[in-house]
Amino acid sequence: MADLGRRARKAARRLGLATTDEKNAALRAMAACIRERAPEILKANRDDVAEAQSRHQSASFIDRLALDPARLDTIAAAVEDIAALPDPVGRTLSRFERPNGLVIERVATPLGVIGVIFESRPNVTADAGALCLKAGNAAILRAGSDSFRTSSLIAEAMREGLERSGLPSDAICLVPTRDRAAVGAMLAGLDGHIDVIVPRGGKSLVARVQHDARVPVFAHLEGLCHVFVHKHSDLTMARNIVVNAKMRRTGVCGSAETLLVDRACADTHLKPLIATLIDSGCSVRGDDSAQSADARVTAATEEDWRTEYLDAIIAVRVVDDLDAAIAHIETFGSHHTDCIVTDDSTAAKRFLTEVDSAIVLHNASTQFADGGEFGFGAEIGIATGRMHARGPVGVEQLTSFKYRVHGSGQTRP
Amino acid sequence: MADLGRRARKAARRLGLATTDEKNAALRAMAACIRERAPEILKANRDDVAEAQSRHQSASFIDRLALDPARLDTIAAAVEDIAALPDPVGRTLSRFERPNGLVIERVATPLGVIGVIFESRPNVTADAGALCLKAGNAAILRAGSDSFRTSSLIAEAMREGLERSGLPSDAICLVPTRDRAAVGAMLAGLDGHIDVIVPRGGKSLVARVQHDARVPVFAHLEGLCHVFVHKHSDLTMARNIVVNAKMRRTGVCGSAETLLVDRACADTHLKPLIATLIDSGCSVRGDDSAQSADARVTAATEEDWRTEYLDAIIAVRVVDDLDAAIAHIETFGSHHTDCIVTDDSTAAKRFLTEVDSAIVLHNASTQFADGGEFGFGAEIGIATGRMHARGPVGVEQLTSFKYRVHGSGQTRP
Repeated sequence: MADLGRRARKAARRLGLATTDEKNAALRAMAACIRERAPEILKANRDDVAEAQSRHQSASFIDRLALDPARLDTIAAAVEDIAALPDPVGRTLSRFERPNGLVIERVATPLGVIGVIFESRPNVTADAGALCLKAGNAAILRAGSDSFRTSSLIAEAMREGLERSGLPSDAICLVPTRDRAAVGAMLAGLDGHIDVIVPRGGKSLVARVQHDARVPVFAHLEGLCHVFVHKHSDLTMARNIVVNAKMRRTGVCGSAETLLVDRACADTHLKPLIATLIDSGCSVRGDDSAQSADARVTAATEEDWRTEYLDAIIAVRVVDDLDAAIAHIETFGSHHTDCIVTDDSTAAKRFLTEVDSAIVLHNASTQFADGGEFGFGAEIGIATGRMHARGPVGVEQLTSFKYRVHGSGQTRP
Repeated sequence: MADLGRRARKAARRLGLATTDEKNAALRAMAACIRERAPEILKANRDDVAEAQSRHQSASFIDRLALDPARLDTIAAAVEDIAALPDPVGRTLSRFERPNGLVIERVATPLGVIGVIFESRPNVTADAGALCLKAGNAAILRAGSDSFRTSSLIAEAMREGLERSGLPSDAICLVPTRDRAAVGAMLAGLDGHIDVIVPRGGKSLVARVQHDARVPVFAHLEGLCHVFVHKHSDLTMARNIVVNAKMRRTGVCGSAETLLVDRACADTHLKPLIATLIDSGCSVRGDDSAQSADARVTAATEEDWRTEYLDAIIAVRVVDDLDAAIAHIETFGSHHTDCIVTDDSTAAKRFLTEVDSAIVLHNASTQFADGGEFGFGAEIGIATGRMHARGPVGVEQLTSFKYRVHGSGQTRP
């Protein structure tokens, strides 16, 4: 593992100086190699799937793991899409001139070596590797043991693409073992050879990484997202947003888990909101008011306010006012994504200012919490930390910066 | 200590929503309180100094610790200067509109609670506390035990200023004990109540903090800064920059520790550069070429290339070319601040691009590595990390950000 870190660091140094054309050519070659090696990759994937089935993994687990020609083509196309993104390295982030004539530029640079630890989805090998590369970084990828064969071959194809285009193949390193000790070594930073860790997977993986990592982590533990329907809101808009926020896809981190309804509009809004949710196939757990509004609502306990269901279940609570909504979100939320539905711009401004979450929305679904929807092209994940990367982590967030100072012989008095 | 964390977190929440006027009024009131309580503070400082003398601390140590009316006034004035800086919170860092009409703004927010661990300089209490406050953060300050009495009273004055202006006094918390276990609790993050640690002090303090902290750290361990004199350089400019970079102040992190001279100009430049340094009172340790150029040069070993002297000593080495200079800096440097002196813009561009340091300069002294010199108004330190804060850490770097999304009822397809 230490050797892997040294090789990745060396590759990162070369990658950091690669031109946009070099990186994009490499990404296109990587996609081509994935396509060329499709038969091999699909064969390895069948073996992974067979093993997972023999271990009686769930149908949804198998679905995340399994590839077919169309899915593999989508993986290759995603790498090409990343090639088409603007290069985040070398951007001048700010520029200022000092009275003594010094011109100071803040310029984006790569982060270095990014460790990605993921579970069963083999597409992460390509997505994460390509995003890291686009930002001039080397990636050390640790695949879940269930997708090890598939991920190994995808990584091989990407390394071949790098070689073909003259960049070091060690810019994409897959940890060559299923041994779990490798994860510990990565979390310890591989002797300073990993600059940041990105976990991609379920809550237990993220919790372990956040707890044990000795290097920065870009991640969110939970997406306990709220929609607050304010007293001055249009019922139709509120209904559309609430149903979309909860039900469009229930398993994503941006799906809403709690609906807060302003007491001042509960008489008019609560019953139709609950009815629409239930009619959409959602189970509703609610406080006394919600239960009174619709007999199909079951009783919520405080635990429900703390629960990320990731399923067709929502907790509904009536709150006294905007302040109470903000206080509820501060107490029970996960600082991921929260929404207010209101026609009152003053209330919206207060909510957007005072709710301390990575993403705060006014009159739009929480399911927009996504790098693609933000126009970032692709994302390696969503972060709820307060340092460096927050919200969707796209290629720009995979960069650091340096100051370049241009002088003409200045010395400091 | 846990209670301290909770109180600071609560204060941070209020501070994060404070207006610019509220924060500036508080800073001015803090400065006024420091001035009003000058007799008390100076008395406490005399006690601290007496104790340090009884422990036979060095003259330079006592000098860092000791205050007089003029120094205390400078401390208060520095707090007023911070009040005059632009508010970094609420700045729109970027704004983009999506095809679906969503308007997404990235807006600066405070970081939260900042832990500052420092040694003997009591002015850090005021400087660091004021910088954190300006950026809407609460600060938990841990003073060195030698300056404990002085720092306690300065912190008291600042808390009084906060109270007078209606902001929570817990926005500035001084750890109320000299017990060293408090540092360990801070490095563990005080149960999630510290978001980032800033160590202010010598290398052993920074090393301990970097090694033990479980939260992000803004710091540099060493400033092993280089000046590379390229073959196409003006000797007079090179001489001015080298002497200033080394000798203006030898104890600061931006002082040069190694001079690299291009072999192609060694015949003309090496001897006068060394002579000027020695004439300025600097000891020179050099490789064979440097020793041949001037008999007063003593032999350098590889250890010298790795040494941050923080003193009137410099290591001099002749390198084959630009590539060798970059390789030397990559091998022995600390990614802090490095300079090239050259008239060749292509060589300058390569150096500024390829040297992987927080600050890279062309034709200017490394002693410009300073937040004030960068126009940041003041700095809490200089960081060499690759995440979030790099280079001088001013009020802007003490902020985080959030995404505010403005919709009109959009749902995600």
